[in-house]
Amino acid sequence: MQGQSQQQAYDRGITIFSPDGRLYQVEYAREAVKRGTASVGLRTPDGVVLAANRRVSSPLMERSSVEKIHKADDHVGVASAGHVADARQLVDLARRRAQGEQLRYGQQIGVETLTRSITDHIQEYTQTGGARPFGVALLVGGIEDGEPKLFETDPSGTDYEWQAAAIGGNRDVIQGYLEDNYHDELDVDGGIELAVSALSEPEDEVVAAEEVDVATITTDDETFSSVSVDRLESIIEEIDQEEMDE
Amino acid sequence: MQGQSQQQAYDRGITIFSPDGRLYQVEYAREAVKRGTASVGLRTPDGVVLAANRRVSSPLMERSSVEKIHKADDHVGVASAGHVADARQLVDLARRRAQGEQLRYGQQIGVETLTRSITDHIQEYTQTGGARPFGVALLVGGIEDGEPKLFETDPSGTDYEWQAAAIGGNRDVIQGYLEDNYHDELDVDGGIELAVSALSEPEDEVVAAEEVDVATITTDDETFSSVSVDRLESIIEEIDQEEMDE
Amino acid sequence: MQGQSQQQAYDRGITIFSPDGRLYQVEYAREAVKRGTASVGLRTPDGVVLAANRRVSSPLMERSSVEKIHKADDHVGVASAGHVADARQLVDLARRRAQGEQLRYGQQIGVETLTRSITDHIQEYTQTGGARPFGVALLVGGIEDGEPKLFETDPSGTDYEWQAAAIGGNRDVIQGYLEDNYHDELDVDGGIELAVSALSEPEDEVVAAEEVDVATITTDDETFSSVSVDRLESIIEEIDQEEMDE
Amino acid sequence: MQGQSQQQAYDRGITIFSPDGRLYQVEYAREAVKRGTASVGLRTPDGVVLAANRRVSSPLMERSSVEKIHKADDHVGVASAGHVADARQLVDLARRRAQGEQLRYGQQIGVETLTRSITDHIQEYTQTGGARPFGVALLVGGIEDGEPKLFETDPSGTDYEWQAAAIGGNRDVIQGYLEDNYHDELDVDGGIELAVSALSEPEDEVVAAEEVDVATITTDDETFSSVSVDRLESIIEEIDQEEMDE
Amino acid sequence: MQGQSQQQAYDRGITIFSPDGRLYQVEYAREAVKRGTASVGLRTPDGVVLAANRRVSSPLMERSSVEKIHKADDHVGVASAGHVADARQLVDLARRRAQGEQLRYGQQIGVETLTRSITDHIQEYTQTGGARPFGVALLVGGIEDGEPKLFETDPSGTDYEWQAAAIGGNRDVIQGYLEDNYHDELDVDGGIELAVSALSEPEDEVVAAEEVDVATITTDDETFSSVSVDRLESIIEEIDQEEMDE
Amino acid sequence: MQGQSQQQAYDRGITIFSPDGRLYQVEYAREAVKRGTASVGLRTPDGVVLAANRRVSSPLMERSSVEKIHKADDHVGVASAGHVADARQLVDLARRRAQGEQLRYGQQIGVETLTRSITDHIQEYTQTGGARPFGVALLVGGIEDGEPKLFETDPSGTDYEWQAAAIGGNRDVIQGYLEDNYHDELDVDGGIELAVSALSEPEDEVVAAEEVDVATITTDDETFSSVSVDRLESIIEEIDQEEMDE
Amino acid sequence: MQGQSQQQAYDRGITIFSPDGRLYQVEYAREAVKRGTASVGLRTPDGVVLAANRRVSSPLMERSSVEKIHKADDHVGVASAGHVADARQLVDLARRRAQGEQLRYGQQIGVETLTRSITDHIQEYTQTGGARPFGVALLVGGIEDGEPKLFETDPSGTDYEWQAAAIGGNRDVIQGYLEDNYHDELDVDGGIELAVSALSEPEDEVVAAEEVDVATITTDDETFSSVSVDRLESIIEEIDQEEMDE
Repeated sequence: MQGQSQQQAYDRGITIFSPDGRLYQVEYAREAVKRGTASVGLRTPDGVVLAANRRVSSPLMERSSVEKIHKADDHVGVASAGHVADARQLVDLARRRAQGEQLRYGQQIGVETLTRSITDHIQEYTQTGGARPFGVALLVGGIEDGEPKLFETDPSGTDYEWQAAAIGGNRDVIQGYLEDNYHDELDVDGGIELAVSALSEPEDEVVAAEEVDVATITTDDETFSSVSVDRLESIIEEIDQEEMDE
Repeated sequence: MQGQSQQQAYDRGITIFSPDGRLYQVEYAREAVKRGTASVGLRTPDGVVLAANRRVSSPLMERSSVEKIHKADDHVGVASAGHVADARQLVDLARRRAQGEQLRYGQQIGVETLTRSITDHIQEYTQTGGARPFGVALLVGGIEDGEPKLFETDPSGTDYEWQAAAIGGNRDVIQGYLEDNYHDELDVDGGIELAVSALSEPEDEVVAAEEVDVATITTDDETFSSVSVDRLESIIEEIDQEEMDE
Repeated sequence: MQGQSQQQAYDRGITIFSPDGRLYQVEYAREAVKRGTASVGLRTPDGVVLAANRRVSSPLMERSSVEKIHKADDHVGVASAGHVADARQLVDLARRRAQGEQLRYGQQIGVETLTRSITDHIQEYTQTGGARPFGVALLVGGIEDGEPKLFETDPSGTDYEWQAAAIGGNRDVIQGYLEDNYHDELDVDGGIELAVSALSEPEDEVVAAEEVDVATITTDDETFSSVSVDRLESIIEEIDQEEMDE
Repeated sequence: MQGQSQQQAYDRGITIFSPDGRLYQVEYAREAVKRGTASVGLRTPDGVVLAANRRVSSPLMERSSVEKIHKADDHVGVASAGHVADARQLVDLARRRAQGEQLRYGQQIGVETLTRSITDHIQEYTQTGGARPFGVALLVGGIEDGEPKLFETDPSGTDYEWQAAAIGGNRDVIQGYLEDNYHDELDVDGGIELAVSALSEPEDEVVAAEEVDVATITTDDETFSSVSVDRLESIIEEIDQEEMDE
Repeated sequence: MQGQSQQQAYDRGITIFSPDGRLYQVEYAREAVKRGTASVGLRTPDGVVLAANRRVSSPLMERSSVEKIHKADDHVGVASAGHVADARQLVDLARRRAQGEQLRYGQQIGVETLTRSITDHIQEYTQTGGARPFGVALLVGGIEDGEPKLFETDPSGTDYEWQAAAIGGNRDVIQGYLEDNYHDELDVDGGIELAVSALSEPEDEVVAAEEVDVATITTDDETFSSVSVDRLESIIEEIDQEEMDE
Repeated sequence: MQGQSQQQAYDRGITIFSPDGRLYQVEYAREAVKRGTASVGLRTPDGVVLAANRRVSSPLMERSSVEKIHKADDHVGVASAGHVADARQLVDLARRRAQGEQLRYGQQIGVETLTRSITDHIQEYTQTGGARPFGVALLVGGIEDGEPKLFETDPSGTDYEWQAAAIGGNRDVIQGYLEDNYHDELDVDGGIELAVSALSEPEDEVVAAEEVDVATITTDDETFSSVSVDRLESIIEEIDQEEMDE
Repeated sequence: MQGQSQQQAYDRGITIFSPDGRLYQVEYAREAVKRGTASVGLRTPDGVVLAANRRVSSPLMERSSVEKIHKADDHVGVASAGHVADARQLVDLARRRAQGEQLRYGQQIGVETLTRSITDHIQEYTQTGGARPFGVALLVGGIEDGEPKLFETDPSGTDYEWQAAAIGGNRDVIQGYLEDNYHDELDVDGGIELAVSALSEPEDEVVAAEEVDVATITTDDETFSSVSVDRLESIIEEIDQEEMDE
């Protein structure tokens, strides 16, 4: 409804509404998220799966240093999409909060409580002047009271709870794939397969095992653990097999 | 009375009046409220009803995470419309104030006192530089001295007391429906029915039970409690029946 | 003397004079006052009368929540016109000052002293950067040393003492009516009648009893008290009678 | 020497010189002084006279509330012209300084010392950012070491000592009248007459007694005292008589 | 080398260099100095002479209140040119520094040390944002270790030591006169004559005794003392005589 | 996708996203890195090699003062490219962090931990207003738990881990050379040769020994040590020999 | 590569990069250095020589007050070029640092350490908002561990070590002369001669002894000492002689 020249007038100060009630800087921060590679999260009755694409710009770069999946606490993991350095700030905040809970109350922080402490921090950067919003979205997954939980944080400081969600580049395609293929009977193993397939969806072929970073937190041990390349390779083989079978 | 190009000159700084005495940023924040889905509140002699639409953008999103109705204290609930992350800040503020009252004076905070502490906070963001106004409206409902009370807060920091009020998208249509159908003999059960009907008004058909979030605080137990989906389904059935009867 | 395009150059920063020595933001704040509904105050030998229009935008709104007349201390009332949330800040300030005087010196604050503490606060917002002026005018009325006193505060931080004054929308018409009809022999009862008639002046007919909020502070008990709707109704009846008699 | 469009470039920031070394905001504050009604001060061997026009915008306004002559201390008075609320800030500052001197050293503050503390405060507002200059000029008159003293403060923070001076609207006309009619043999009574005549000069007829506010501080009692309306009336009668005699 | 429109781009913020390395605000502050009346200082083997024009805008103004020569300490005087209120701030700073030295070390502050503390303060206002430069130049003269010393401070915060110097309006003409007529055999009496002649140079005739303010600090008593009008009159008579003799 | 005039609108404030989600000031800081001479880092099983071009603008400049390789701790070195003074700030920060770790925990700081503390500092300068980003990239190399480690920090506050990396001018050419010639069997000696060859790649001939600064940290002694000019000369001789052999 | 109108967009805020990675305000500060008269520094095996042009604008100005060579500590001198008042701030900083070292550790500060503390201070003014860069370059020379050392600081906060260097106006010409004539066998006496000749290079004739300020710090006594005018005169005579001999 706004012409282009009018829009320009309201999108340069973060602490300002446009006449139709929008915060353009927050919407542009969402574009920064879309510029990042995708991450996917989903929960099954027996755990949470987080998966992310890790592209490297040179064969000499250590793939492990392209961190998209982060351990926030023993029982919580975080997948990110968007501005890498911003993501690190939020992950560090999450870790400090989780440790603080442990120190003060001797207990693990709840996944929802942890997510809220992140989104409160994000919201502050969208209202108070002197700083830009965070150009990053997160998927926060973990076990709370024995139940798998998965939340998303967006650059406006809103949080959403999901069964399965995608963030970052090609979000729409990947989320559509998740909506078509997610079902209640999935277990963690099936979830890993679904997550990898979903990340492969925008491209023509299945991702290579070393191009993807996957972690799980199961209700069994409530412990964040990375999925090994070996396990990923056999899962990807299975996907390839299934595709050929179709 | 102001042409468009002149208006542009006064709506970019929040701490500035236009020549005709308006604060444009506050008015734009009201637009942000209208961009949100609607919430409704009403009071009856035996309690307060808060109801909100909860739309989800994907079937994989947990409907419960689209929080529009919040418990502020045992005896007070808050329904919001507009910028979700802003609403959370104000709800958190309300909770801290309510707890503070409990801790310092050993008593429940009055609903009006609580509302005022919120609107004072909102007003500050409309006068002092370096921050934008809150892009959210709230309905604050609860029991005070045995009486049901319902207040609205708007982005200017003004509060209003209501018998029945709507905020957010399609406010005018819904408020008109409330004005036509609200009457003094309603009890909480009738109030729930009215609230759900009002939220259904802008669309052609009655909302589904899971698309609506309803809570009540009755004079009986002075306790915030969510209305179960089962109860909502039977209420909606009744509404459908009545409409067919007409 | 200034053309329109030149004016625009000086009215966007509050801490700036125009070449002809004006503070535009303060003048625009006066426009915000005019956008509000009118309030009237007057004093008689036996007391002070404060009266205000209270319009509601919906029949479901609690008229009592449209607060235009505020009790600042036992012996002082305040009527406001303009930005409602701004008014509340100044009324709260007045209450804190009155309480502080009571606590520190064990005595009631003088009406003039109280007014000055408000206008000092207002002035600060017209000179120091980072905030806009207050978009509200107040009528501060009360008993000081046994004498009825009535002051006005304006958005520049100036105070005036009045026998009878109007603020807000249609100020000129109402003030003219007061100048024509105010006389020294009025008592509080006559003052209420005059105030209600004055508020009715801009419209064709006398206001309804519930559309007006009236309070008095008499020299007898030096206590702020609201005038009941019953008493207002009989007064309005009398006005109608007199008009018909003319 | 500067064209109009160039001038505009340098007059919007208070902390900025124009290419020809001027501070436009200070010059515009001087225009704010000229927009106010005039005040006059003069000294005679036996005292100081301060006089000011007090115009009221409505017959219901208390003339006494249009304060142009202020008592700063027992032995010092201040007459102001310009922005009323700004003047009150400076008068309050003067009072606090006078009281501080009394409390700390048990003695009356010197008139020059007091004036300097005011102009230091004014200067600060012309150099440091974040605030506009004071839009007011003051005449500070009193007795110091038994001698009558009269100083002016201007919006740049400069002070001048005078035998007789006018500030505010029509300053040039009134100052010219003072220069023509002031002489060394005047006593306080003659000074009051001269001050009232001077204030009457810009209009065709002598001001009415109630339209003028006059105060004196004599060397006899070194005490600020207002001149009664009765005394003013007989003085004005005398002036009328003299004019008719001419 | 810079065209006019380009210059405008760099002269509005004080903390900014132009492409050719200039600080325009400092240069404009120098223009403010030139707008003031001139002051002159010189030193002779037996003392320092400071002299200043004092013009008054009305015969009713006390000439003594146009202060251009200030006593900074017993043994140091300051002559100023430019923005009067700015000069007072720097003179007050000088006095506090001199007193501080006396209090802390029980000794008179050196003239150069005192000058440096002034120029350090001035420099700060040319580099740090939020304030404009000081629009004033000073001549600081006094006795240090038995030797007469004379320094100039300029708006950039630079100090220069002089045998004889002029600041303010017509500086070039007066400085040229000093260069032509200053010589090593001058004593304080001759210095006063030279200073008065130099100040008279831009006009056609010798200044009147009451239009000039002269002070000396001699090596004899190391004490700032004003030159009496009588002594000035006889000096000026002598100058007139000499001119007629030529 | 953005036209030039639109781009200009978003690249002047560091705390602002462009409509397509980019932070232009960070991208321009990357240009500042490219304006610097190149640095190269690589790791081999037995150590880390850091190498940098050091050009001097005059034969009288001490080549050693063009510092591009810095010792951060006994076991960590840093190579920089870009704004020299910015690099020094980050290297100083690294040293303080390393010392702090030593003091508090009595152990050497990990290379990754150290890198993160640098990138956290860099990130802060890209989000909070009032400062520009750091115009420098670093290669941080050292031994951690007996293993050689090499990280890069970029102006966005992102860190990458590398086997071999180039930063600064001609990065693309040099990185391409590294990708073609780096292999797993390299030892530190071979690494020095590769680094020097890579730095020589953009020019037609091999750099002179004194134009290059090389340091190593080996797993043997975990100690930062500069490579002597003699050793460099023999290495360069060897390179020349090899090239001729080809 | 940038057109003129584009350049203008990036050179007004100090904390901002241009699209090609430049900091214009720092480059303009370098222009401010070029506007100053030149200074020269060089080191020989037996000491450091600092020399500067001192031009005076009037024969009445004390040449000694045009300070270009400053003693920072017993064993360190500083020569400056550019904005004089800025230089004084940096020299004062250097003195405080040197004294602090002496007080805390009882030892002389190293010349490089001292230089770094200056350049760290300069760098801060190029990155953090609210202040402009320092418009001055320094040559810092002294004895460290018995060795003569010479450093340059530039407005970006970079430091360079030199055998011989020129800063300020005509730098290129003078530096070229130094490069042609500096050699390893120079001693301090020869160094003084070379420095004076270099400063004379841009003009047609050798500078006069009183127009140049020269200081040395020798390894013998490690003490800053000014070269007397007598010694300078005999040196200049020698130069003249040599030139004539050629």
